Amino acid sequence: MESKRGRVYIIGAGPGDPELITVGGLKALKRADCVLYDFLSNSELLKHAKDSCERICVGKADGLHLKEQGEINRLLYKKSKEYRVTVRLKGGDPFIFSRGAEEARYLKKKGVRVEVIPGITSAIAGPESFGIPLTVKNKISSVAIITGRKKDTNAEIEAPRCGTLVYLMAVGNISNVVKALRRNKWSEATPCAFIERATRKDTRIIHATIATIEEEAQRAKIRPPAVLVVGEVVNYGKE
Amino acid sequence: MESKRGRVYIIGAGPGDPELITVGGLKALKRADCVLYDFLSNSELLKHAKDSCERICVGKADGLHLKEQGEINRLLYKKSKEYRVTVRLKGGDPFIFSRGAEEARYLKKKGVRVEVIPGITSAIAGPESFGIPLTVKNKISSVAIITGRKKDTNAEIEAPRCGTLVYLMAVGNISNVVKALRRNKWSEATPCAFIERATRKDTRIIHATIATIEEEAQRAKIRPPAVLVVGEVVNYGKE
Repeated sequence: MESKRGRVYIIGAGPGDPELITVGGLKALKRADCVLYDFLSNSELLKHAKDSCERICVGKADGLHLKEQGEINRLLYKKSKEYRVTVRLKGGDPFIFSRGAEEARYLKKKGVRVEVIPGITSAIAGPESFGIPLTVKNKISSVAIITGRKKDTNAEIEAPRCGTLVYLMAVGNISNVVKALRRNKWSEATPCAFIERATRKDTRIIHATIATIEEEAQRAKIRPPAVLVVGEVVNYGKE
Repeated sequence: MESKRGRVYIIGAGPGDPELITVGGLKALKRADCVLYDFLSNSELLKHAKDSCERICVGKADGLHLKEQGEINRLLYKKSKEYRVTVRLKGGDPFIFSRGAEEARYLKKKGVRVEVIPGITSAIAGPESFGIPLTVKNKISSVAIITGRKKDTNAEIEAPRCGTLVYLMAVGNISNVVKALRRNKWSEATPCAFIERATRKDTRIIHATIATIEEEAQRAKIRPPAVLVVGEVVNYGKE
């Protein structure tokens, strides 16, 4: 009954730099008989998988899905019956604006053994790679990570009163993010930074304020994936 | 001029499970000639350092500091002159409620080459290890990570209007955290969970609501380090 013993590891590949996967994540990847991976997970990581490992791109990137979520769930289940070790490799962390928890629940309900291995989110590592802390002792006591894009494009973007805000998936919807910040009385002069391709070799940062970020991002041709940081912490990164 | 070439790696050790350090973090640790480490970083990780590596506990844990921050900064600088590779190993991520950014700035201003390697924060990995996602597609669009303790014990704790709140260092100050949630109109029935010793072998979770969390945490004798999650996501982890 070998086929029933299949285990699925849902792994965060981290933000981009292939050395930012965890030791446990890499270990599971090396044992994988099958990997279902996203565009956002660095393809260099796949080199660690066995030659015999079946590699399936399920292709979730900003706005582009090769497979619908239901199809991915069913495929994971199917592969868990075929193979001993199936890996679901996701960009960043599987439980932050990702659907790792849905995949885990789907599989568990069907009796599959699932292990989740967290990953470094670009929301933290992106700013960090440019020296920007997300909190500052005795000064900035909270950081919110927020989606910059909603399925319902008319839905309001959130802009809570926290010390620091970090938006993921904000590039294509930056004008609505700026509207949300204004609506929530964030000062026009608040420093902002867009970090493109966080922790990859070709990463870059642009600095602006809430008043100018939309224009500056267009001028610099910022493309996804990118992380938007809003708050005084941005200035700490310039010191 | 060997002594001038010292490099300092400021590394996030991750939340507790020694396999949750990153591949890059472990690689630097293995090369270290000297490690300055916190209580919160898992001491099992130190086994990876060379036999000849000087190990210095600078002992930051919840409320207990063996050395003041200024002393740690000066010691890091001193060691960077003595050794080729000095590692500063910190629990969680060095830029989230940690003073990694201060240490990095201090050293850079003195001309020391510094590299920061992010770590998995218990704020994300703790809930994740119990199946609790921090965001839910089209439903919960933001998560705030907040300090549950401030230096000025009269200072108000933050409780912003986000989909999910995660408090670090809240155990000893839970009554003020609950007050903050009430002041910010969080419903008494909102689900909460305390996750003690996230991702370690002896980790545990307790469930409650805002109305009952203080009492339940006392009854269960929750001790630091622990992560408090507040929001509907807690129920997703129960499915």
